[in-house]
Amino acid sequence: MFYYDGKLQYPVRVETPDPRFARMLQQAIGGVEGEIRVCLQYLFQSFGARGPAKYKDMLLATGTEEIAHIEMLATAVALNLEGAGSAAQEAAAKANPMVEAVMGGMDPRQFLSAGMAALASDANGVPFDGSHIYASGNLAADMYANATAEATGRVLACRLFELTDDPGMKDMLRFLIARDTMHQQQWLAVIEELGGHQGVLPIPNSFPLEEEVRDVSYVYFAPGIEGTTPPQGRFTEGPSLDGLGQFELRPAQPFGQKPVLAPPLPMAYAETQQMLGTAGGLTDDGLPTSETQG
Amino acid sequence: MFYYDGKLQYPVRVETPDPRFARMLQQAIGGVEGEIRVCLQYLFQSFGARGPAKYKDMLLATGTEEIAHIEMLATAVALNLEGAGSAAQEAAAKANPMVEAVMGGMDPRQFLSAGMAALASDANGVPFDGSHIYASGNLAADMYANATAEATGRVLACRLFELTDDPGMKDMLRFLIARDTMHQQQWLAVIEELGGHQGVLPIPNSFPLEEEVRDVSYVYFAPGIEGTTPPQGRFTEGPSLDGLGQFELRPAQPFGQKPVLAPPLPMAYAETQQMLGTAGGLTDDGLPTSETQG
Amino acid sequence: MFYYDGKLQYPVRVETPDPRFARMLQQAIGGVEGEIRVCLQYLFQSFGARGPAKYKDMLLATGTEEIAHIEMLATAVALNLEGAGSAAQEAAAKANPMVEAVMGGMDPRQFLSAGMAALASDANGVPFDGSHIYASGNLAADMYANATAEATGRVLACRLFELTDDPGMKDMLRFLIARDTMHQQQWLAVIEELGGHQGVLPIPNSFPLEEEVRDVSYVYFAPGIEGTTPPQGRFTEGPSLDGLGQFELRPAQPFGQKPVLAPPLPMAYAETQQMLGTAGGLTDDGLPTSETQG
Amino acid sequence: MFYYDGKLQYPVRVETPDPRFARMLQQAIGGVEGEIRVCLQYLFQSFGARGPAKYKDMLLATGTEEIAHIEMLATAVALNLEGAGSAAQEAAAKANPMVEAVMGGMDPRQFLSAGMAALASDANGVPFDGSHIYASGNLAADMYANATAEATGRVLACRLFELTDDPGMKDMLRFLIARDTMHQQQWLAVIEELGGHQGVLPIPNSFPLEEEVRDVSYVYFAPGIEGTTPPQGRFTEGPSLDGLGQFELRPAQPFGQKPVLAPPLPMAYAETQQMLGTAGGLTDDGLPTSETQG
Amino acid sequence: MFYYDGKLQYPVRVETPDPRFARMLQQAIGGVEGEIRVCLQYLFQSFGARGPAKYKDMLLATGTEEIAHIEMLATAVALNLEGAGSAAQEAAAKANPMVEAVMGGMDPRQFLSAGMAALASDANGVPFDGSHIYASGNLAADMYANATAEATGRVLACRLFELTDDPGMKDMLRFLIARDTMHQQQWLAVIEELGGHQGVLPIPNSFPLEEEVRDVSYVYFAPGIEGTTPPQGRFTEGPSLDGLGQFELRPAQPFGQKPVLAPPLPMAYAETQQMLGTAGGLTDDGLPTSETQG
Amino acid sequence: MFYYDGKLQYPVRVETPDPRFARMLQQAIGGVEGEIRVCLQYLFQSFGARGPAKYKDMLLATGTEEIAHIEMLATAVALNLEGAGSAAQEAAAKANPMVEAVMGGMDPRQFLSAGMAALASDANGVPFDGSHIYASGNLAADMYANATAEATGRVLACRLFELTDDPGMKDMLRFLIARDTMHQQQWLAVIEELGGHQGVLPIPNSFPLEEEVRDVSYVYFAPGIEGTTPPQGRFTEGPSLDGLGQFELRPAQPFGQKPVLAPPLPMAYAETQQMLGTAGGLTDDGLPTSETQG
Repeated sequence: MFYYDGKLQYPVRVETPDPRFARMLQQAIGGVEGEIRVCLQYLFQSFGARGPAKYKDMLLATGTEEIAHIEMLATAVALNLEGAGSAAQEAAAKANPMVEAVMGGMDPRQFLSAGMAALASDANGVPFDGSHIYASGNLAADMYANATAEATGRVLACRLFELTDDPGMKDMLRFLIARDTMHQQQWLAVIEELGGHQGVLPIPNSFPLEEEVRDVSYVYFAPGIEGTTPPQGRFTEGPSLDGLGQFELRPAQPFGQKPVLAPPLPMAYAETQQMLGTAGGLTDDGLPTSETQG
Repeated sequence: MFYYDGKLQYPVRVETPDPRFARMLQQAIGGVEGEIRVCLQYLFQSFGARGPAKYKDMLLATGTEEIAHIEMLATAVALNLEGAGSAAQEAAAKANPMVEAVMGGMDPRQFLSAGMAALASDANGVPFDGSHIYASGNLAADMYANATAEATGRVLACRLFELTDDPGMKDMLRFLIARDTMHQQQWLAVIEELGGHQGVLPIPNSFPLEEEVRDVSYVYFAPGIEGTTPPQGRFTEGPSLDGLGQFELRPAQPFGQKPVLAPPLPMAYAETQQMLGTAGGLTDDGLPTSETQG
Repeated sequence: MFYYDGKLQYPVRVETPDPRFARMLQQAIGGVEGEIRVCLQYLFQSFGARGPAKYKDMLLATGTEEIAHIEMLATAVALNLEGAGSAAQEAAAKANPMVEAVMGGMDPRQFLSAGMAALASDANGVPFDGSHIYASGNLAADMYANATAEATGRVLACRLFELTDDPGMKDMLRFLIARDTMHQQQWLAVIEELGGHQGVLPIPNSFPLEEEVRDVSYVYFAPGIEGTTPPQGRFTEGPSLDGLGQFELRPAQPFGQKPVLAPPLPMAYAETQQMLGTAGGLTDDGLPTSETQG
Repeated sequence: MFYYDGKLQYPVRVETPDPRFARMLQQAIGGVEGEIRVCLQYLFQSFGARGPAKYKDMLLATGTEEIAHIEMLATAVALNLEGAGSAAQEAAAKANPMVEAVMGGMDPRQFLSAGMAALASDANGVPFDGSHIYASGNLAADMYANATAEATGRVLACRLFELTDDPGMKDMLRFLIARDTMHQQQWLAVIEELGGHQGVLPIPNSFPLEEEVRDVSYVYFAPGIEGTTPPQGRFTEGPSLDGLGQFELRPAQPFGQKPVLAPPLPMAYAETQQMLGTAGGLTDDGLPTSETQG
Repeated sequence: MFYYDGKLQYPVRVETPDPRFARMLQQAIGGVEGEIRVCLQYLFQSFGARGPAKYKDMLLATGTEEIAHIEMLATAVALNLEGAGSAAQEAAAKANPMVEAVMGGMDPRQFLSAGMAALASDANGVPFDGSHIYASGNLAADMYANATAEATGRVLACRLFELTDDPGMKDMLRFLIARDTMHQQQWLAVIEELGGHQGVLPIPNSFPLEEEVRDVSYVYFAPGIEGTTPPQGRFTEGPSLDGLGQFELRPAQPFGQKPVLAPPLPMAYAETQQMLGTAGGLTDDGLPTSETQG
Repeated sequence: MFYYDGKLQYPVRVETPDPRFARMLQQAIGGVEGEIRVCLQYLFQSFGARGPAKYKDMLLATGTEEIAHIEMLATAVALNLEGAGSAAQEAAAKANPMVEAVMGGMDPRQFLSAGMAALASDANGVPFDGSHIYASGNLAADMYANATAEATGRVLACRLFELTDDPGMKDMLRFLIARDTMHQQQWLAVIEELGGHQGVLPIPNSFPLEEEVRDVSYVYFAPGIEGTTPPQGRFTEGPSLDGLGQFELRPAQPFGQKPVLAPPLPMAYAETQQMLGTAGGLTDDGLPTSETQG
């Protein structure tokens, strides 16, 4: 169960409201790098957690913190949109400045659909999409998914930091950026607890290695045509990160042949010419033979 | 530019076609853990790569390999669906077994929309969704995104391995699982090249640390109410993974106050009662005062 | 800010796990009538609330309760999926029963993507879609949206009640159904506080009535062709619900004429024949004239 | 069956075309509050209507009217986009003004994809999404859904009214706003016909009340932590709207305990450490024990 | 404006209701080959039509006919779902057969969300998606889009014909298949009116041919690597269909060089190592130099 | 299997970077008329091709060419976004011009999510949607789908040509427009190989004609109400294109009657009033009778 106190985790102030920045903030709310996603991702990982209880608890805790981040950002959007309002009041005689804002760079749906408030969408107005809530049931895969979410989330917050000069907004972002720093480490720390690369790789580490085609498990295949030079690095030579093999570089070559599928089933209603097949349906000049038409 | 040879990277055989397994394979084609996603993700990361050229090349190479994996899996789907057909032919006298297959556990659109072939969708028929193509422009964030994709992809392949007894399908999956092993390592090897945790964290490592609220950069906040016990681990004490701080555990408490938004703008057409505000719009008994209706 | 205690709001028990019912429960988690939607809808309405503070608080409170409903249902899904597991263990010698479950009626992604846990999707595996989070900024519109969500939500819960014989599942649903009863009333009670139909209609009540074409504000237009009989009822005669007019029945007839658009712009690259227009581009026999090809 | 006359239900005139307003109008066509949605919602409710025939007819009639509203708005979009064209013609010598329009605030796909016409999308270019077509089979739930759609639809139309000074556009919106007034009343009038709150609540009213946990059917749960003050109102005391109980205020407290899930199934391929569980997989210091690696 | 008579365009009868076939029919309602799509596609093409008025009228007429097809199919779904009900009534003593139907092959949302009626979704429950409504503003492009829609639509209807033995359903499909026959011809007849291949190709025919790189306008590029044999046919030799060139076969070769992008902007927050570039950020051994960390 | 050489198929140069044009180019990458779509459409048609092998090869070849078009366009986006950067560097003292670009007409996610690179989305930021990958298994239907894709694709490219004055961008588009010319012809040439209209129509040509309701197979139904004049043309008289009938014009009239559905099932939880039906549930005055409430 969950509880609230109605206060913000960190102060949200806007000195000079900016409706266009309100649009940008949407990416941090409903975007693929945003807070709805991490919030629900951690909560779903917790709700479905099997195995050591402490990770279920930790995911629940951090998922709960993230709800407060949605709250902060939604509040920031609403406050930035008040700029349109106050501008409108000051400029009664001029052409309508809020109309300009709505017509210009702001998200029109923040006005049209929400009456000057945040949406559950990204900076382009694309609605939040639940398919980004990764909760695979494999702890290591999920921790890398979470670290990724916090890495792209912190990159996003840093970019937003560049798009505003408002002291209040910069202060809020400084806090969120710091929390992303922590959360990146938090998820990678679980990988360390599980033994690091050698403890978790290959993910899942519970699949019997002898079942996979070990001959290609550490091979970098280079599918460049003749004349290209394959890149080299830590991934083309030396011991593999799981300590169980050696990296190797090989040109890409097919192990298989050209695939051949059966002719179409009658009940699938291909064209008659397809069903009669290569030999029958087409004459040498590429035109259908007379018997292909019924 | 790209080229093809028409051969499969690895043989794809189906001994006992199974239309229901053809549905399951869709997850590895068009699902969020699937091959269309990793293919386009690596290609888009390559196309937009800025900085060291070798990563642009490497991403291009592996993205190109992944097209061949889509090809293998789409071929596997088509071959498994031939089961419906051959079953149908053998069972002429009985009630239509292919109808049973279509009506039963298979993806009906593999028949209805594709005439017994693969779709660009997942195991529930949800179309491939391009928002999963992560290409952030930050190399470390992208490498973790890629490692995640290969981790969830290998977990998926292992689970598919459990759902089939067909020797051909198992053999194909053994190859794909091995390639996922390699690709997990490949992306994490780039992190190692960049210096590991201390080289890349916090991501982005180009944001000046002094700009973030360092007081909370390594703090695990515990938002459990009184009576709950916070989990402890590598993430609550000891040096941070970036080597720049110490983990710490603190109960979650608000730094901010209750947010207050301005009243609705007239042009946003809230209800009149909202615009008159708490003091005016509602009497003590919670009913609107007479002047709220115009 | 938000807090948790890790306990369930109401006990969730499953006596006879049923993977197919786990699929059905997904509708109540990630479906359009589900708990993620109401949770985020109430929270976003609260975060963006302008006007009387008590509604901001109330929405925050009930939004917080709904997180616990997601938690209960996600737990119920996970427990129902353990059925597949225990069945599998008991039936070691037989053909794999869990394979049957995955291949049969259950959501394959609960296994393939989540390892036997809940997804943020509906009963057909369609991901949760944030566009269903209605928060219009108009209190009355939002209250009707919320009452609708709880009405369809309670209908859904009642239908789920019919699909299970498990005493634990029935008990959980009895609780959720009761909470939906309350929440329907809660949102409609706000309408009553605002003065009922006469207090809130037409929504928004802040738009000057004289601006609308009052001649058609209470007219039921009947667009049936000759020979059809229009339905009659409370909506075709008597006083309107807002007390400001009289319902009336009229056959539907156009006030406007046939619309005529300008010819295509050259830079929009229509076909040449379209740009030359009716008189020029087509001769009487319907073929393009010779000058239409350049 | 359906018929047409090719005329507009109400005149659509544009005196000063405005490509940016053409973008805004898209919300009323393909947005969640738009006309495609209400049109298809009423038609699907009619097509699937069971019970009194008059509602099937009424829904069919009003759904048919709404097709004409799509027609009006699509025409309005096309006429507003002619502004870009006429501007372009007048300004032959200057830098291309239509390029400015396309590059500026208009929806670029109205040019790129439609050649200066309307799309089946919202004001952000998000395609119309059929999941918003609510047709639950429960008449009361559907009537509230319809009233909600008309309430948010009228709010949208009023907001659009503020974004244009064009007399033709204002006139068209005055008509549509009036029709939304009627349609709000129409759907709520059905609720009145069914007996109002006491006749329809709780929805569905066909579920036996004794099956729900009546103890919590009229309780407002307050999940604020200590120190918060719960809001009070019509929903915390007095008779319930269905006349069957009394509202009540209680602090939120868990009835359940902490949920515990079974360990991961082997075939779901969690990490080995998860499968060994808390006691086995992790030593006291949080590192995996030696036997967790195989 | 539009009108209705409440009758079906063609009789819809179901002798033996089949809930699983009700799911299949969804593809013809809300699928990409379905009737909602063609209905709205023709209507939007009509609403935005510029140029000869007769095509605006024709599109309006056929779009209006298609609404009646949605009506027929939605009715067919509802009637097929009554099978679940009558089965349930007859089998009072047995385990619940409707539960079996819902749990088995039918679309669970037809029960859970619609109470035994049609949804605006496809056979996998994916909601109708407005992005499939093609209305390009170019008449020839739109006619091919329409012919495609009717071609895939007729293929779909033929496949559905194979999945049912019900005489009523077969009869309804025979009618719809015949209408698709007509509509394929109708749209291609417009191409003929415009002069056939030579009249409309290349689409758009209004773009000055001398502006395109004519050297490659009729060349089939063969990107097979050495050892592959390119396919030959009508598209590799002989006169082009527009009568303006000769088909030709050439091996694919790059005209361009390897693309080089500028280094990342500081404000885009790549990793420091990326910004320092190949020469500076990475030493020969692939590890970052000491100065890359700040 | 696939290979690469890292070079562009045609040179991509940008003389004057324009972030707003970078947004427009997204339509040609991830839009419904874009290159990801045609690339995957041709590849999936090839992977699932049944019947004459030469079409499987041809589809594979052209699908492979299209990957290079994605590469060109993604490179073009990245180069156009460097404009924002160089502008920013030159204008250090002024207000931030890149902020203006991001806040103005460019796609904000090209900066926020991709760090100045292309996304797999359209010009409105809507992610690529795999449901547009048509691969029906019927060769003629697929060829028309492909011709449509190339027709709308070339229209799009021509419109983009109008939105830029950059010589490099115009040159790239001239090449892409020429390739679209070829590809339109290529797919229509297959139709010619199959015998043209008489060879392929009606699609599928394998369905027995006698099964369809031939009476309406060549009839243009005119559903205009009295007073409307139906359009006439090649589609209302003369021989049908398949040579098997005569076009004909008839007013639209229903063959069927008003549909009647069974009352709601108890377990579907309609309102009680619906279940009691017209005669029982509603009294003459439209209010429920007393026995409808239990």
